[in-house]
Amino acid sequence: MVNRKLWEGIINEYKEFMPVRENTKIITLQEGNTPLIFAEKLSNKLDIELYLKYEGVNPTGSFKDRGMTLAVTKAVENGDKAIICASTGNTSASAAAYGSKAGLKTVVIIPEGKIALGKLTQALMHGSIVIPIKGNFDNALDITRKIAANYPITLVNSLNPYRIEGQKSAAFEVCDQLGGVSPDILAIPVGNAGNITAYWKGFKEYYQAQRTNKLPKMLGFEAEGSAAIVKKQVINSPETIATAIRIGNPVNWEKAVDAATESKGSIDFVTDEEILDAYKELALEGVFAEPASAASVAGIKKYVKLNKIGKGSKVVAVLTGHGLKDPDTALSTIQTPEAVEPNLDKILNLIGL
Amino acid sequence: MVNRKLWEGIINEYKEFMPVRENTKIITLQEGNTPLIFAEKLSNKLDIELYLKYEGVNPTGSFKDRGMTLAVTKAVENGDKAIICASTGNTSASAAAYGSKAGLKTVVIIPEGKIALGKLTQALMHGSIVIPIKGNFDNALDITRKIAANYPITLVNSLNPYRIEGQKSAAFEVCDQLGGVSPDILAIPVGNAGNITAYWKGFKEYYQAQRTNKLPKMLGFEAEGSAAIVKKQVINSPETIATAIRIGNPVNWEKAVDAATESKGSIDFVTDEEILDAYKELALEGVFAEPASAASVAGIKKYVKLNKIGKGSKVVAVLTGHGLKDPDTALSTIQTPEAVEPNLDKILNLIGL
Ligand SMILES: Cc1ncc(COP(=O)(O)O)c(C=O)c1O
Ligand SMILES: Cc1ncc(COP(=O)(O)O)c(C=O)c1O
Repeated sequence: MVNRKLWEGIINEYKEFMPVRENTKIITLQEGNTPLIFAEKLSNKLDIELYLKYEGVNPTGSFKDRGMTLAVTKAVENGDKAIICASTGNTSASAAAYGSKAGLKTVVIIPEGKIALGKLTQALMHGSIVIPIKGNFDNALDITRKIAANYPITLVNSLNPYRIEGQKSAAFEVCDQLGGVSPDILAIPVGNAGNITAYWKGFKEYYQAQRTNKLPKMLGFEAEGSAAIVKKQVINSPETIATAIRIGNPVNWEKAVDAATESKGSIDFVTDEEILDAYKELALEGVFAEPASAASVAGIKKYVKLNKIGKGSKVVAVLTGHGLKDPDTALSTIQTPEAVEPNLDKILNLIGL
Repeated sequence: MVNRKLWEGIINEYKEFMPVRENTKIITLQEGNTPLIFAEKLSNKLDIELYLKYEGVNPTGSFKDRGMTLAVTKAVENGDKAIICASTGNTSASAAAYGSKAGLKTVVIIPEGKIALGKLTQALMHGSIVIPIKGNFDNALDITRKIAANYPITLVNSLNPYRIEGQKSAAFEVCDQLGGVSPDILAIPVGNAGNITAYWKGFKEYYQAQRTNKLPKMLGFEAEGSAAIVKKQVINSPETIATAIRIGNPVNWEKAVDAATESKGSIDFVTDEEILDAYKELALEGVFAEPASAASVAGIKKYVKLNKIGKGSKVVAVLTGHGLKDPDTALSTIQTPEAVEPNLDKILNLIGL
């Protein structure tokens, strides 16, 4: 009888692709190895083969953990004592968790009132210094960059190259989960555009290492109200219900365009209404993702309708964060039932029995 | 180059221990393979070797997914069309997710006003029929049992034996993660006492199969205000901040006592204050668990103080659910900071640079 080897986090599992030494002390919460779930109902409805890469099933509930394990590992290796980020919420939750694990002072700068409840809670519980500013994400990032450039505190936004190096592991996993095969299409929400950059890098490296059979087309989807890349202009006051991608001046703008161009894919946008529709449909597949995540599936639905995704295509949608991150948006889309007396007949009636 | 085999969910991974056939259609969200995280700060402080089994990193954010994959798989195999449960929240979230994945009608009966925000949101989003009753969990379970006994709807509470069979997989994982070794002590929160029953069964089966070297001592911890087993009496109005274990008449009462007795362990209780202290300390290890989960660590701290856990012991604490399930309790324990103008000097001052 052999004991099963369980997952040890993305750095250990994909070490040959990671910029660490044999003796690097790895700071990990055993992120990664997230589910790739076949979406039966949506596949039937859209006449494609749709898989959901459910990144909500990471330690802090989003894909950010993949990049943060490496960014924090390298910060510790470098002898750094403090880290800082600007965030629409998930980056700060992840930085706070890995920062506390590593014993680093962690500072997060967030746009006031515009981050989902769960994410704020995480940053605070993990003991970081949380500074909400009167302004949006882009303002928060500006000031964070200034501080990191001039003081002994390390930036862990996706400008930090280790973030991208860690996040590319998700592309490796997709190929591994499909049995050494790439999907025809990889659809992904776009905010700062770090993640689409990371996936594309991951697919290229895995293809070069002959661990996958081809390169997928990359389809990135912004929210209409913050679609800077699609509209080819900085958006000064981005607005969308998908707060995680409410970003008007994406840091990795050019790299996202490169990923789309090189892969013969595209960057497009979806409306808040399309996002919310996809969000609800996903929950009926058994998968609760946060609103921003649903942009990938909203985009797929849009592209199937436009005949830009062919019948039978193998499509992977990246669901970047867990639905539990943002209970308020969920509750605003559904009706909460009223309490009843514990009366058998009444309850049978409600059940329809 | 070989592709990595990623996790396929607990039924496929531990099939020889699971009551399924070769051709059983498995309903899975790829639950399990959750992190086992070494708690460095707490280990040093308590002078033990403490690991956290972080069950919040399951698809719906709690250990319930391990039992639900099997309960729903067997319901589908049996041709059932509907499932029902009473719940303090996590069971209903899990039933709702797996029920929707399988296309079953799913009904959840919950105690009014006493389930955490995230859990309610999950049940609703996944499209189940949610019925809050005026009463507590024990009342909800009574009526649920009556309905399942008399109508064509399958009970998926832990009275359903497949729940326990699925949940025992967590004990297998702990042994696998420790390299074929059992901890000296397994500490776990106790509500309905299904999970302690499942872990004990899992350790015994793995020991018999020679996949682990010994049996651990089982330490179960109830919340003081709902400590029926410890106080040897049904509690009619259980009260605790740990709503997930606010249960006054545990279904698996005798089995929990058996697990404690057979393993030379015990069932004890911890106060809400001890739970909240442990809850906050855990977050500083980088692990955000829900309040009920912290009962395991609160119990360990209590037992170290009482010299009931020896120096250097290898201890595993089960953290049953994710902190994101219950943002309200988190926010009630911490201060949310006020927004500031994006002024560099002011922010540097807040950071202490
Ligand atoms: C849930 C979620 N989805 C998508 C994104 C966008 O990722 P990126 O900024 O790398 O484009 C983010 C970034 O904050 C996020 O939190
Ligand atoms: C988070 C959490 N912890 C612990 C428990 C207790 O588990 P059990 O009822 O199997 O004793 C529950 C059950 O609802 C739970 O949701």
